[in-house]
Order: sequence, then C-alpha cells, then structure tokens
Amino acid sequence: MTTSIIAASVLFDRVESRVRSYSRSFPKLFDRAEGASIYDASGKPHIDFLSGCSSLNYGHNDPDLKAALIDYVSADGIAHGLDMFTRAKEQFLRSFERHILKPRGMDHHIQFTGPTGANAVEAALKLARKVTGRTNVISFTNGFHGVTLGALAATGNGKHRNGAATPLSGVTRAAYEGYFGPDIDTAELLDLQLSDPSSGIDLPAAIIVETVQGEGGLNAASSEWLRRIQAIAHRHDALFIIDDIQAGCGRTGGFFSFDGMDLQPDIVTMAKSLSGMGLPLAIALIKPRYDIWKPAEHNGTFRGNNHAFVTATAAIEKFWADGAFEADVARKAAYLAQRLETIADEHGLRVKGRGMMLGIEARSGEAAAAVCKRCFDDGLIIETSGSFDEVVKVLAPLTITQDQFADGLDIMEAAFAAVMGSRRAAAE
Amino acid sequence: MTTSIIAASVLFDRVESRVRSYSRSFPKLFDRAEGASIYDASGKPHIDFLSGCSSLNYGHNDPDLKAALIDYVSADGIAHGLDMFTRAKEQFLRSFERHILKPRGMDHHIQFTGPTGANAVEAALKLARKVTGRTNVISFTNGFHGVTLGALAATGNGKHRNGAATPLSGVTRAAYEGYFGPDIDTAELLDLQLSDPSSGIDLPAAIIVETVQGEGGLNAASSEWLRRIQAIAHRHDALFIIDDIQAGCGRTGGFFSFDGMDLQPDIVTMAKSLSGMGLPLAIALIKPRYDIWKPAEHNGTFRGNNHAFVTATAAIEKFWADGAFEADVARKAAYLAQRLETIADEHGLRVKGRGMMLGIEARSGEAAAAVCKRCFDDGLIIETSGSFDEVVKVLAPLTITQDQFADGLDIMEAAFAAVMGSRRAAAE
Amino acid sequence: MTTSIIAASVLFDRVESRVRSYSRSFPKLFDRAEGASIYDASGKPHIDFLSGCSSLNYGHNDPDLKAALIDYVSADGIAHGLDMFTRAKEQFLRSFERHILKPRGMDHHIQFTGPTGANAVEAALKLARKVTGRTNVISFTNGFHGVTLGALAATGNGKHRNGAATPLSGVTRAAYEGYFGPDIDTAELLDLQLSDPSSGIDLPAAIIVETVQGEGGLNAASSEWLRRIQAIAHRHDALFIIDDIQAGCGRTGGFFSFDGMDLQPDIVTMAKSLSGMGLPLAIALIKPRYDIWKPAEHNGTFRGNNHAFVTATAAIEKFWADGAFEADVARKAAYLAQRLETIADEHGLRVKGRGMMLGIEARSGEAAAAVCKRCFDDGLIIETSGSFDEVVKVLAPLTITQDQFADGLDIMEAAFAAVMGSRRAAAE
Amino acid sequence: MTTSIIAASVLFDRVESRVRSYSRSFPKLFDRAEGASIYDASGKPHIDFLSGCSSLNYGHNDPDLKAALIDYVSADGIAHGLDMFTRAKEQFLRSFERHILKPRGMDHHIQFTGPTGANAVEAALKLARKVTGRTNVISFTNGFHGVTLGALAATGNGKHRNGAATPLSGVTRAAYEGYFGPDIDTAELLDLQLSDPSSGIDLPAAIIVETVQGEGGLNAASSEWLRRIQAIAHRHDALFIIDDIQAGCGRTGGFFSFDGMDLQPDIVTMAKSLSGMGLPLAIALIKPRYDIWKPAEHNGTFRGNNHAFVTATAAIEKFWADGAFEADVARKAAYLAQRLETIADEHGLRVKGRGMMLGIEARSGEAAAAVCKRCFDDGLIIETSGSFDEVVKVLAPLTITQDQFADGLDIMEAAFAAVMGSRRAAAE
Repeated sequence: MTTSIIAASVLFDRVESRVRSYSRSFPKLFDRAEGASIYDASGKPHIDFLSGCSSLNYGHNDPDLKAALIDYVSADGIAHGLDMFTRAKEQFLRSFERHILKPRGMDHHIQFTGPTGANAVEAALKLARKVTGRTNVISFTNGFHGVTLGALAATGNGKHRNGAATPLSGVTRAAYEGYFGPDIDTAELLDLQLSDPSSGIDLPAAIIVETVQGEGGLNAASSEWLRRIQAIAHRHDALFIIDDIQAGCGRTGGFFSFDGMDLQPDIVTMAKSLSGMGLPLAIALIKPRYDIWKPAEHNGTFRGNNHAFVTATAAIEKFWADGAFEADVARKAAYLAQRLETIADEHGLRVKGRGMMLGIEARSGEAAAAVCKRCFDDGLIIETSGSFDEVVKVLAPLTITQDQFADGLDIMEAAFAAVMGSRRAAAE
Repeated sequence: MTTSIIAASVLFDRVESRVRSYSRSFPKLFDRAEGASIYDASGKPHIDFLSGCSSLNYGHNDPDLKAALIDYVSADGIAHGLDMFTRAKEQFLRSFERHILKPRGMDHHIQFTGPTGANAVEAALKLARKVTGRTNVISFTNGFHGVTLGALAATGNGKHRNGAATPLSGVTRAAYEGYFGPDIDTAELLDLQLSDPSSGIDLPAAIIVETVQGEGGLNAASSEWLRRIQAIAHRHDALFIIDDIQAGCGRTGGFFSFDGMDLQPDIVTMAKSLSGMGLPLAIALIKPRYDIWKPAEHNGTFRGNNHAFVTATAAIEKFWADGAFEADVARKAAYLAQRLETIADEHGLRVKGRGMMLGIEARSGEAAAAVCKRCFDDGLIIETSGSFDEVVKVLAPLTITQDQFADGLDIMEAAFAAVMGSRRAAAE
Repeated sequence: MTTSIIAASVLFDRVESRVRSYSRSFPKLFDRAEGASIYDASGKPHIDFLSGCSSLNYGHNDPDLKAALIDYVSADGIAHGLDMFTRAKEQFLRSFERHILKPRGMDHHIQFTGPTGANAVEAALKLARKVTGRTNVISFTNGFHGVTLGALAATGNGKHRNGAATPLSGVTRAAYEGYFGPDIDTAELLDLQLSDPSSGIDLPAAIIVETVQGEGGLNAASSEWLRRIQAIAHRHDALFIIDDIQAGCGRTGGFFSFDGMDLQPDIVTMAKSLSGMGLPLAIALIKPRYDIWKPAEHNGTFRGNNHAFVTATAAIEKFWADGAFEADVARKAAYLAQRLETIADEHGLRVKGRGMMLGIEARSGEAAAAVCKRCFDDGLIIETSGSFDEVVKVLAPLTITQDQFADGLDIMEAAFAAVMGSRRAAAE
Repeated sequence: MTTSIIAASVLFDRVESRVRSYSRSFPKLFDRAEGASIYDASGKPHIDFLSGCSSLNYGHNDPDLKAALIDYVSADGIAHGLDMFTRAKEQFLRSFERHILKPRGMDHHIQFTGPTGANAVEAALKLARKVTGRTNVISFTNGFHGVTLGALAATGNGKHRNGAATPLSGVTRAAYEGYFGPDIDTAELLDLQLSDPSSGIDLPAAIIVETVQGEGGLNAASSEWLRRIQAIAHRHDALFIIDDIQAGCGRTGGFFSFDGMDLQPDIVTMAKSLSGMGLPLAIALIKPRYDIWKPAEHNGTFRGNNHAFVTATAAIEKFWADGAFEADVARKAAYLAQRLETIADEHGLRVKGRGMMLGIEARSGEAAAAVCKRCFDDGLIIETSGSFDEVVKVLAPLTITQDQFADGLDIMEAAFAAVMGSRRAAAE
C-alpha cells in the first residue's frame, strides 16, 4: 500500500498538531533509511546531515545494531521492564561500565530516567537540589537542556521559554565562554559574583553546562574554561553537571565530549545517540556520593526501554570497545573542518564547533535558511542552530562513508555559493 | 553467555542508581516475556499482574505487534524521525483517526510530545497556559501526572514532590470525588471557590484529572462527577484535560477511559500502552481551536519514535478496529470484579477501581506489601498503589488467557488468606 | 489659606495616582477630626464608622494620646530611631509586657517590623519558613493579609492578587469556617488533607488565620474552630499565626481578638490601632523558641517610629491597664448587635461579625454600595467588605459616645430602609 | 520616672526580638535628639553620622518641622486618613508639585504606598509587570530594595535573601557599573544579553537601579552609565525605575539623586527622608501613561500618614523652595570629600560614594567595625555598608553645623588612625 505524499500532507495537516517543525523544513514523506541515506516515499535518497539532531551518530539502521534488535525481539526479549532487573539492562550496564566508565576511571552510578534528554536534566537538577539543599542552578547563555518546566528554566532559547507561558524560576544565567567577546573572561565574572555574598546570585546547587552548545550555535568551550567552571562549582560547594546529550557519544570525538579534558563532572546527562539506533533512552551518571535518591523518588514508565538497552550495548561493543572508531571520527572531523574552512573562507564566514559538530555561521538566519533550503533541494538534509538560527550545522553520521560525506559537503558548498555569491566571482 | 542472578545483583548494586525501585520488590533477573508471562533468568515463569504499570495492556510481545516491528526493522524502516513526516507516522495517524477519533466524533489534533507521559502532561499544561493567559492549574488530591517539574506540581504524592527539593508552584489542589467522604460533593466545593473572586484560588488555565487514579489508590470518578468538573472548567473559561495515561488504551474498558461518559476533554494525554508493546510513545490530543503552538515551541528529540508508531498502528488495527476486544475486556473485568469481591468479602475489605483496573484496599501498606510479597513468592508479580501503598492493584494484561487469569487470582486469594487470616478460620 | 474643594479635586486628579480608592467613595476634603467626628473643609462634621479600617479604635485625636505626643515632640523626643534602644520604645515594651502579655501568660518576643501590617505578615511568614524549613503556608478563603508579594500570596482577594501581575506562590488555600456551608467541617477537611501524604498539599510552615475576616466579609470563626486549626497546625509541626491586624486592639472585645479563646498562637501580627492614634506601627509577637532571627535579617527603616511608641504606650495605659474599657466595648457591642439585628430583620438580611466589628450582609454589592452612598449623603462614613463588597461594615470608634453611636445607626437604618424598601411597607 | 540603662537592657533582652541590630552596635538607651545630636539617657550627646540611614537628612526635630507638626496635632488635624482627600495631603501634593516636579519638568503621578520603602518598591514592580505583561525584573549586584518578598527578590544582600527561607523569583541580576572592574562595560553586557533572544534572560518589565548603592557599599553610578541603562530599558520596552529611597532628598545634592543627569525615570520610589522628620512615608512617582492601577489595587492602611504629610510639606517649603539648601549641601559635600580623602590617603584606602553619601572602604569588615566601635566610644554614631560591611559610611544630617561636622570627622579620623595605624608612624 503506497500513499501519495499529497494524501499524506493532507492527513498530517488535518491531524497533526501545529507544533510540528522539521516537517516544515523537509516537506517530504520519508520511508526508510540506511547509514547516512534517508529515502522518501518515491524512493529518492537524501544525505542526512541532521542525524536526528545527533541521535543517529552511528547512522540509520546500523546492520549490527539492527540484527541485535531483531534477534532480541524475535526471542521475546522483554521490551518494557519498568526499572526491574532485566538481562538486557544487565548487559548494557556491564558494557557501559567496562568500555565507558572503567577506562576513564569513573565510578558513576547510572540512573535510568525517563527516556528523554529533558527528563535526565530534570533528574540531575532535582538531585543536585536534594544534595545541596539549595535551589538555584547556574546555566549558560544559549544553553539548551529541554522544554519540560524544570529543564526549560535552564534553557536559554526565548521561543522555548515563552512556550511555558508562566515564569520560569530556579535558574540564574551565566555567560558562556566568549559570550561577551574574546576579552572578557566569563568564568571570572561568575566566580566574582558567587564569591560576593551581596551579588544577589544565590549560591547554586549546581552549574550545568554543555561543552559544545548544539542548539545555541555551536559555541565550543575550551577545556581550560570548563575546568575553571568545574573548580568554581566545587569551590562554592555546588555540583558540576555536564549535559552531554547532544555533544556526547562520539560527536566531538570521544564517547564523552569532555574526554581528555581532565574533568570529573558530578553528574553527566546523556540521551540522543546513547541507544545507538535512535531509540529513546536517557541516563544520568551520578558520582556515588551524590546518589542519595530514595527508591522511586524520580520515576517514569519508560525507564526500562529494553530494546534501547540492546542496541546501546551493541553500539558500545561495536564502536567503543577499542579506539578504531574514535580514530576514524577524528579523521573525518579533520576532513570536515578543512572543507568547512574552505567554504567559510570563500565567503568571509566563520566555522564554529568541535569534532563532527561543526557549522558555518552565515550572515543571518535568513541566509542560513536559504542555504539549508537549497541543500534540501539538492538532496541534503541539514539544519540551523543559534540565537538567530544563523549557523548551518553539520551533524553527519559519524559512520558516513567518505564518498557520501564528500557528496554532502559538495552540495553544501554549492548552496553557500548560490546563496552568498562567490567572492571571487564578485571580485571579477 | 549466561550470567547468574548473583553476579547480576552485584553489578546492579555497583552500577545502578539507588533510585531503582521495582527491582527491590521483584529481585530477580528477567529475561524474556510473552503474553502475561515473564520469565526469569532461570527460566521460571511469573504471571504479570503489573503489566509495566499498564504499559503492556496487550501483554508482552504480542505476536502481531512483534511481527510488524520485525518486518519494519528488517526493511530499514526509519527508527528515529524527529518530527518529520514518515510513513510509519502517517499510518499511525491514519489508523488513530479512523478507529479512535472518528468513531467518537473527535477532531483533536495529535501532538507527539517527548515519549513519556510526563512530557505529554508538561505540553498540555504549557498549552493551556498559553491559550488562557492564566498560570494556575487545578489538579486533584492523589493525582499522579509525572515527576518533571511542571507535571510534578500537579502530582499529589508527597515522596515524589519532595524529590523536587524546591517548591512546586502553579497548581492548586482540589479534592477528588469522594475524597472527603460520600456526603461531601467535591465538585460543588470547587465550583464555589472558583465562583468567589476572593476565594484566593486564582482562575485556572486548566483542570487536569484522571478518571481513575492509578497511582493514587484506584479511586474511580463517576461520569457524572467528571461531567460536572468539565462543566466547571468551561464555566470558568478553563481547559478540561483528561490525563488518560494509565487508565486509557482499554484498561477501564474503552480506548479512552472516558468512552461513553459524554465528555469532550479539550486535551487528552496518553502514553503507557499507546505503543501497544511497551515502547516509549506519548501524545497530547488537542481540540483544534486550542492548538496554537508555534512550530517547535514544545520540542524533543524522541517525538518521532517510529518503532512505536509501527506497533501502535498494529495495536489499533488489531484491537480497536471492531468491538470484539472491548467486549472481551468487559467480560474479563466482570470476572475480575467477582473474584476480587469474593476475596474482599472474605476479609472485610473493599474493592476499588474500574474495569481491568481493580484492586483491594488492604488494612495498611504493610499488609498490602505482605500480600504482594507472598504473591511474588508464588509466581505472581503484583504491586500496590495509594497514599499509603495500601491498595493491592491488579493490572493484568487485557489479553491474558482465562486460565492464567484464574491462576493469578488464585495466588492472590491465597496470599490474602495467608496474610490476613481467614475470617471463617478465625470464627471457628 | 483655605482651598476650595474644587481646586483640591483638580489637584488630586492631576497629581495623585489612579490607585486612590476611598476618596472616590467619600469625595470631600477632610481637615480635622476628633473622637468619632471627622470634619470636611467646609466645617461639616461626619460620623466616622470606618475608623481608618479599624486603625482608629480609640477615635481621632484622643486627648490623652494627643497630649502625650505633643509633650514628646516638644521635648525633642527621638522621632526616628531605627531599631536602637530608645526611651519611648522601652516604655512601650514595658507597658505592653505589663498590661498585655503578662496578664495573658504570654512571653512572646516583640519584633518591630516595618510599620505596615503587610510587613508584619511578611516577617511572620519568613520566620515560620526559617523555623520549619518548609515553604508552604496555609491561609484561608477570603483572608486579607496585605499586598506585598509574600503577604499577597496569602490574601484571597482576586483584585489584589491580580495586581501582582505575576503568579503568587508559596501559599495553599484552605476553607474558612462555614465557607462551604454549615454542614461541612472545614477544619476536618484541612486535617484530612495534611494527614494524607499524597494529598498534594505540602506540609506547611504555618497556618495563618484571622479570627474575624475584616476585609473578607466579617466572617467570624468560632473559638472551637480556631482551637482545632491551632491543633492541626501543631499536629503537623507547623506554626499557628493569628493575624490580628484588623480584629485586634479591642475591636472584637479584648486586646487580642482571641482573648478568652484558650489559644496560644506562635506568632501574632498587629498593626492598625496598635499606635492608638493612627500612626504607622506594626509588630509581630513571637514565641521565644521560634525567635531565631539573625540580627537585621528582617529589617526596615521605620521600625522605630517613636511617635507611635509614645501614643501606643499612652493607649495601653489608658485603655488596657484595667477592665473598664473592655467592659464598655462589650456594652457597646451588645447595643450595636441589637440595632443591626433590628435593621437586618426588617429587611430579611443577616448580621455578620463579632464585637464592634459587625455588619449587615446586603443582597448584593450594588445594594451595599447604595446604602453606603446614602449614609455618606447623610453624614456617615461607612464602607463595605466581602467577596462582592456586599457587607455594610460598622467599624465605629470603640470610644464613640452613645449619642453619636445612635445617630450613626439611625442614619444607617434610614439608608437601609431607603435602599431596600421596608418589608412592612411592602407587605401593606 | 527614670529607668536605668541596665534595667532597660534587661527589658529589651527579655521582650524584644533577636532580630534587633543597631542596638547591638550602639548599646545605649537614647532619649532625645536635636539636629545632629542624639542624647542618651544619661544626657550624654552623640554626633549622629547615621541619620536614621538617611531618613533624617534634615536632622532630628528640625524646629520648623516640629512646630508644624505640633500645630497640626494641637488643632486636631487628621492623623490617619487612609487614602482620603485631606488638607494635609493636598498641601503636600501642592508643594511637591510646585517645588519638586514642576521645576524639573516632571508630571509624574504620586502614589502613596504603604509607608515603607519596601512597599513603594513592591508597588513599582507590580505596576511595571502590569504595564508590560512581563514578569522578569532586572536589578543590580549589591542593590538594596527592601525585605518583603517582592522587593527582596530585587535585593542583592545574601543575609537578607536567606531570611526569606524560600526561593526568590522574578528578578534577574545584572552587574552594576564597575562591578567587574573598570575595563568591563556592564551596560553593554546587559544590552547584549537583552538583545539576544537565546540569552536566557527574559525581557524585563523593568530595570530598577539606585544611583548610589547605599547599603551595597556606596557604589556610585555615573550619569552616563545611568542614561545608558535607561536607554537599554526603553529599547527593550521595559520601564526604568530609580529607587531613590536612600540617595534622594538631598543626600547626593539635589532633591532627586538623579537631578541634572538628564534622566527621565518612569517610576521613582522614595521614602526615608521624604517626611523630613523621620516619620514613615513612602511614595512612588509614576509617569501618567503608566499609572494604570485600578482603584485600591495596591492598598495599605497607613498610606495616609498625615503627620508625615505635614512635616514633608514643611521640609519642602523650607529646604527646596529655593536653591540655598542645595548649595549648602554641595559645600558640605566638598568639605566631607576633602576630609575623607585625607583620611583615606593616610591609610591607603579609597573614598566611595557621592555628595553627602560618602564613605571609606576599610580593608575588611572587621577593620570597619573596629573603626565604628571606636567612633561610638568617642561619641560618634556611624555605621558600615557593603558586601562585607567594609565601608565606613558617613550619613551626617545635611543640616549639620560646620563645627559639629568637623568634630565628627575628627573622631572618625582618630578612629581610623587608631585602628589602621598611621602610615607615617609605621614608616618611621
């Protein structure tokens, strides 16, 4: 049974809420996907530089993950397990501990929160408040942490904040690295305020930060700045939380975006690519001494998405049991950087981000939208980010083939040229 | 590779957060499940009267849902689609509209929220506040709506509320039907307060209610009371929201728990059994005139859990395309009621709830816990509910066979007898 | 220099904020006042049944208070003393302890808050939260506690609440005695909710109550109900606060409105008639064990209004050193009750309130306004109260002469007759 | 009847709340006061460099104000008038309009709030929220605006904030001029954040600022910075509020602290010295187009403190009808600055503040406390200010005689020398 895209459009328009968004940028009916390719109903392939907003770091339907899932389902493996002990959870925990935590000297407990990043953030903020007895939380300009009320208070985006239609409280905003320009040390500003008992900034339960602000415009913090933020948190007896939902799982290189930065976050939130195949899964990693939850104090029906445990385990075993994948990602990231620098140079623009989480800051949101539209017309799915949606953001699968990666970047290059004009052309 | 339960326990204890809860009541390693049977690592089956807290209304791994999912995955169907148009979503919308909405004369829009019930509630409350420009929300004593900050404010449970470690605001509590005993008409109390400009109860954006309070102790509201609450909401220009997360999807009989009650809720939140197979999926149904979301104003990474769309569609087609399933559920509910009444009578206790969402109020939380423990020893998984965890709650799969249902209830009957003693025995 | 009322009106209209209210009901320029008489610029006297909303219980410019003040000012007594030790404060404390606290077996500490009732309420709520570590506060339907943000959250009046233009939080509303009619025991409802850990009502830091709701419509709580509310507060480890700002200082008979009720409030807030002459003064009386303030933790510039200490001391010495005044007030209250009952009977209306804080519930706010307007035309200043401003409220000076009291009540009786018509007349 | 200070101390200790503060610094019983002299019970005079925290700018018991008050009271002038039209209010409005507003081209409406500065701030913030429909307010580091819940949210001081014992919300903190050192332009930082829709700083209803932070450490903003803050407020459609409670009424030179700065604040809050004699009085000046209060929407019992109107009128007529007083204050301020600079230079310290609101930043709160203690021993009442109470703050009456001023400063100089040692001495 095939349905024409027109019939589908009428249906979506009639039945789906006005809140839908990506389907406005990419108004096609998609059907199946494999690797970096996503096919519409007519069978036409698109290169996917969006990757489910970094939820599909290993591409669509990775054959090994897919096989593991089919085997599991076929054998009547438990699909939904609340937070009971299941074999699938056990194997996930074992792999996660062995390949992720232990090699990094981490002994964090793993909390299975509701399977959304926002839920992991809510859990992290609640726990930090419980641990410290304080209610204020510091988050950063342009940060994105989800849109449920507790997480939304920490999120910077004005459109999302307005969606609450009620004041958001409990969070104080600090400036991200570089927010006030290169000459102002925002970590020092924060420390100064927290050290002043009359600054009016209440001592926080936690400081929550993304190492790279995926939604906020691909602002990438330096390891030095992050270490100072961690030190500031600890100096003021606050927890240091890294929200690694978008930047984690290899997107910036290592499994954690903060690998190799000499950071010891008290809580880490993860979601998006954690399940490896795009299945809903979210966790909070908690230093044992802060894991003071009472049983069920933070609960949720879908904490035990065992299908996601299966694919997550397969992903860890496949990609993170040794260093091969990470090396490959580094190689691709270098290629990506070189390609984007070339485009940016051509148009006098700036490259932002880190690892496989790079983008080009266009002159305006309109220009960025035009670039994305042109890309889509040419078969490339790519989106924007930033305060004014002004950054064209590449979130290609980390597993993309060299050829497809090059093809996608060629489309992007042409789109920039078409939209921005060519300097050389202009000079001639 | 088999892992002994002991090794698993050590692992869980070392790596999983202290927040875990059900694994404390049911300390076994579960492996696979089918229908109403869930098997531990040793191969021992247990009858499941918990059903993922009503997330598995059609049982574990229903063969048709499972087949649909395997087919879909095998064909590289899109797993994660953000909120793009996908074939799987289209088919879900089509089935949902055809078999669920249309027959009931509903034209609600469907919002795919983050795939947790809490997220659907957060979306509903945000939207109601946007629509009305008011911030207060009325929810009810013993209500449960999730534990993210916005939903948690509407939740009554003290343990969960304390988990926030910060004041919860924006919600005013009203008394559920019967909360103050049979002689006090709680709907009238609410109306009186909302009609008095000096009552101190700010006019609400919405009234949110469960038709049966699943976590709150199986309190079941009458259709008359619910109609009056709806009328009160509308008289005071507030939205009427039914949270059908636990009571929906056939648990109390119809697809919606309010089927046949002559109710027209402005928003309905659904999750749990919606995907049919326990996969994370949540939606908010919104009357079109209230669907004033801006694109992406409420977003979330896993809104497009296409595996769940596939199984949800299969479930709707299998169970809700005609009235056979509903009739069967009604028959089972009658059997359940009769069995529970017998047990309750024996011990001078009370049966609570509606449909296949019934329980027995034990004399105390301790007694209820003892009953459940005894059941588990005898191979039955069953849990409690209520302010003091005093209600032993039967949430058997709606698809359970008559034999297994009887077996489970036999275990339960024996457990009550063992824990409460027998009246007749006592009398002799 | 005399100014015509017309010139004055133009001035007020040009320069004073639109927020002014009483000058709309009583659009005259007032000049001087003595006892129960207030004179307008033309020299015309009015009988004052408003008494500064019970701030002038001893009448205008009581000769002894006035003399004490003039002496004090003439001798360069300190006017403004911050919270330093001053002779005037010492004498006030000594008199207050001797004549007010000691005879009642009270050992409360006296906190001089900012000189407004709202400020005393803010201090009381802050302290209760400090003492208990809880943030929720229970206040009652139709309660009035002031309009600063903390106090306003406890106030029931919708117009005042809307004035905040931001959500008010931290307070849960309970129903005052009789709010749901004579058959519903609101104390029991409250206790039931606080005893249920899943009621959704967070355990409170305090319960704050007026013994008679002056602004809320002259609802008078019984001593039995108040004792039960106190017991409920203490059973749930919350402080019991009586807001005696309007009902205290003899208005309902004793110095405290709860005299003789066998109540031991943990905190009592006072203001209005405390200074005796209408000068701004407010205090919170605090049981010593709860007086855990750090120095200056709650401060304010005008805590040391020494003129008010002088007149307050004189008032205590004059009116409360023996029982004569109280006996006289009781006598007047009986007379008032008898007169109002006669009027009410005549028109099938109801008398509300207690002591010298009585009123007649008219059929509507419009009727009550018409009565007050008619009274004003006939030389009597009187105002309304209640959710719909439907209660015509007598707040005559407690020191009013019998003749003037009778004159005022005659005017009131005639006004009711004029507005409501006469039953007998109607019957004939 | 005289009471020994010892008996008084015992009394205060037994009866007054632990919250008292100034009486800890100045543990004497004070009796009467005149000009800059305050006498204790033994008749010993002290020079008053505290002036009721700038509430006594015209000294204690100014003879003309005192005479006006005695006349008024003697003639049975209305003491308490709620917000009715009274002769005393009329005369205040007339004088205020004629001598204060008109010469400055201001047509603000005058709202009589409850007679505390905090109440005026509460009114201002509520009104700004009403006008704009926004809830966020920007206030500054080290700002002090009162301790009732709404005002306290805007106050920076940690001790006072903790006194709330509940989270304070609705206010975002910006950095005052110079807060981050001389090289960082804090106005630009604020503008940048408000211009970024994803900064996470919600657009504010108002920006509230003190021109000199009296409690916050005598930080004095430049007129240029204030104009920029005003422009930023207006560019983002927010109201610009100057809290002139401590810095107004001549303290920094003009009647308003912002006189001559080319500022047009939308709301100005005033209290402290407004009544001229230390009597409680507070107002909010509101640009007419923003005066959208409904009648009584913000009310309060003591809005009509007519004694304060009388003295306030006398103060305006005496001090502000021509420029003589202002010129004299300027002369004194210059003298003060010269004296403090000499002391500061001697010890390598810094002078802070503006006009007659100057102080010396000691090396620590301990040092500043020691200086104040020494001063008090020598007959000078003086207090500290700042985040760490590190600034010794001179708030002498503006009417102090040259001799007394010199005497007080001599005491201060000696105290600094005694506490800090002498550089020259140290160098020798």
